[in-house]
Amino acid sequence: MSRTSAHAPGAPLVTIIGDGQLARMMHQAGIELGLSTRVLAGTADASAAQVTADVVLGDYTNRAHVEEVSLGADAITFDHEHVPDEFLESLISAGINVQPQPRALVNAQDKLVMRKRLREMGAPVPPFMEITSVEEIQEFYRITQGNVCVKTRRGGYDGKGVWFPASEEDAAQLVGDLLGQGLPLMAEKKVQLVRELSAMVARTPSGEVRTWPVVESVQEDGICVEAVAPAPAAEGSAQLSILESAEQLAKDIATELEVTGVLAVELFETLDETGQPEIIVNELAMRPHNTGHWTQDGSITSQFEQHLRAVLDRPLGDTSLIGPATVMANVLGKDTDPEMPIHARMDEMWRRFPKAKLHMYGKDWRPRRKMGHVNMVASEGQTVEELRAEARLAADFLVTAHWADGYTD
Amino acid sequence: MSRTSAHAPGAPLVTIIGDGQLARMMHQAGIELGLSTRVLAGTADASAAQVTADVVLGDYTNRAHVEEVSLGADAITFDHEHVPDEFLESLISAGINVQPQPRALVNAQDKLVMRKRLREMGAPVPPFMEITSVEEIQEFYRITQGNVCVKTRRGGYDGKGVWFPASEEDAAQLVGDLLGQGLPLMAEKKVQLVRELSAMVARTPSGEVRTWPVVESVQEDGICVEAVAPAPAAEGSAQLSILESAEQLAKDIATELEVTGVLAVELFETLDETGQPEIIVNELAMRPHNTGHWTQDGSITSQFEQHLRAVLDRPLGDTSLIGPATVMANVLGKDTDPEMPIHARMDEMWRRFPKAKLHMYGKDWRPRRKMGHVNMVASEGQTVEELRAEARLAADFLVTAHWADGYTD
Repeated sequence: MSRTSAHAPGAPLVTIIGDGQLARMMHQAGIELGLSTRVLAGTADASAAQVTADVVLGDYTNRAHVEEVSLGADAITFDHEHVPDEFLESLISAGINVQPQPRALVNAQDKLVMRKRLREMGAPVPPFMEITSVEEIQEFYRITQGNVCVKTRRGGYDGKGVWFPASEEDAAQLVGDLLGQGLPLMAEKKVQLVRELSAMVARTPSGEVRTWPVVESVQEDGICVEAVAPAPAAEGSAQLSILESAEQLAKDIATELEVTGVLAVELFETLDETGQPEIIVNELAMRPHNTGHWTQDGSITSQFEQHLRAVLDRPLGDTSLIGPATVMANVLGKDTDPEMPIHARMDEMWRRFPKAKLHMYGKDWRPRRKMGHVNMVASEGQTVEELRAEARLAADFLVTAHWADGYTD
Repeated sequence: MSRTSAHAPGAPLVTIIGDGQLARMMHQAGIELGLSTRVLAGTADASAAQVTADVVLGDYTNRAHVEEVSLGADAITFDHEHVPDEFLESLISAGINVQPQPRALVNAQDKLVMRKRLREMGAPVPPFMEITSVEEIQEFYRITQGNVCVKTRRGGYDGKGVWFPASEEDAAQLVGDLLGQGLPLMAEKKVQLVRELSAMVARTPSGEVRTWPVVESVQEDGICVEAVAPAPAAEGSAQLSILESAEQLAKDIATELEVTGVLAVELFETLDETGQPEIIVNELAMRPHNTGHWTQDGSITSQFEQHLRAVLDRPLGDTSLIGPATVMANVLGKDTDPEMPIHARMDEMWRRFPKAKLHMYGKDWRPRRKMGHVNMVASEGQTVEELRAEARLAADFLVTAHWADGYTD
């Protein structure tokens, strides 16, 4: 007896660079499609490596590893944006099918490049400026009357790499420190936030594009904790019309930037000078995204399936809704891990909410770590607020072993 | 770099004996639950081995292999009924958690044992008889006025191991031959079939039981080709009331036989002497079943997820329907494999039916082989007959590369 496995004969092979939950859920979706997937994983017990047959242990910052894992693949794709561009360019030169391509991907890697490109195409962006000196941030601070957000151009996520200096002195100090560390910076005008939205779309290399309805996302300390699909808005309201325009904007960005696979357009909903709602693009992500996890249980085609179909240039699936509303709540590690083991907490949660759909990532507890998520689709007659409350109770119980509303069974 | 993988820390491990599509889809469901699965596979490219991290190559008829794969598992379960009972009994003696247990499983292995047990508990079964001689089949032939079905007690499936002799002489000849080969036999009265139904249920060792709505299943040459959920019946009709009693019957059988995991009760719908519909149990299967594949896209909890939860004695999930109707159509290899490769056929099919949910098994073509299935959930205003037609067109195209209705795009 030996431990091994082999791919399906004749099936397309997709190599996924990355070993996190996004790669894990892509593999899961690929099973149904009869595809073969291979993951480049940093460790044998990484989230995706635990469940995938073809795992190559290696480092995405090592050119030889990236090349080895790409050999023979019909498409190379990613669960993060951090693979060095020059590796991807040399794969492409060698005739390997990288999706999305670096010319699109740079807009998800470098916030300044993205801001310039979106402004060029007429997409709504806040006032922004490249920051290469302390004097520049002081100037920008005065122009924006102190409504300043400083960002590293590259590498920030989940609230990292973003600062809101409280004074001009703070801003100058911060920028001096960061530039001293050699970090390329930009600044943009801080938005008066009404709420955050996310517009998800998939596009194939041939140009087929399909969107999902725009969702409302709730962030805490820069980390997504909840998504509500579709984003609530009263029939005929100005909010509804901005949701429609946000969906169209995501299509336009995907097409203009030649994105392939799934694109998440993270948006701020704010108010213009006349008090009307408007949207501003915050970030782009070119891969399945936390705000699209609801599609696994709330849409005919999940973002993971759609991403695989898109990077292989295959026809896209129907993105219609399965229920009137779906809520996703993240299972985020708290400061301490309860004594009750996680699988026992899952059981307690299921006893109360048999309709909760759990998606666990096989990860150990760590504070603020994304360990899984819960999806719930509205039952008949259930309001969105009731659904949100249930999903949050379920996700909270999974990390606290405690019912926030005092429920006892 | 090496190729390997490891399990999630602290997660329950389920060992699945078997390497077919049922094991493949159990692994897929286990990913979401944060479980670890291990499969005992005959070959490295078997359907489940292709996609699973922890694959042990071996033979389920080899005691040492079955023991090795069971080491350290929180539960042992199956994608078929053919593991020798004595292996399971010795695993249980060694304190290993086998689900379902042999005392339940024997009712899915030995049709005569099952018939006797069901008759004992008052479940509807046809007249039947153990057949140990040619004289007995001649007697049974006369008693039933020639309405005879001869079956091997063990090992038959997909229409194999079942015969309908056309005359008393044929029956005598057949039984003489089969007994000569040492095959234990039984006979039962052939039923005047209206249609076939399937009642699916899951039960935990602690006794929690949840059913899905009864489905209508369509067989061709003894192989399931289609399932319609729920089984069509007019409101208030006698058919509706037998569907309800079939669902209750599945619960009763699961409880009485102490089944754990998923149980499929295959049923014949026939007419009694007064012309009223009645049901008769045909077969039992104690594992996820072809007639339950629709649950992947048509029910909140799929049979694969439910089976894993049940064998681990964890709370069962909600089995409510996602849409008003779901149709599953099998992708069954025809006599020849079309020139157009299967993945190109998938693309053509998706272009016409973007809502079709495909589940491919990673299997090479072979005549009559189950290569995958298509699930479709009814859109608003779509009738069940329209839905059935679409699902069959989709499945047919996947094996013929030809639209049976002459469609051209």
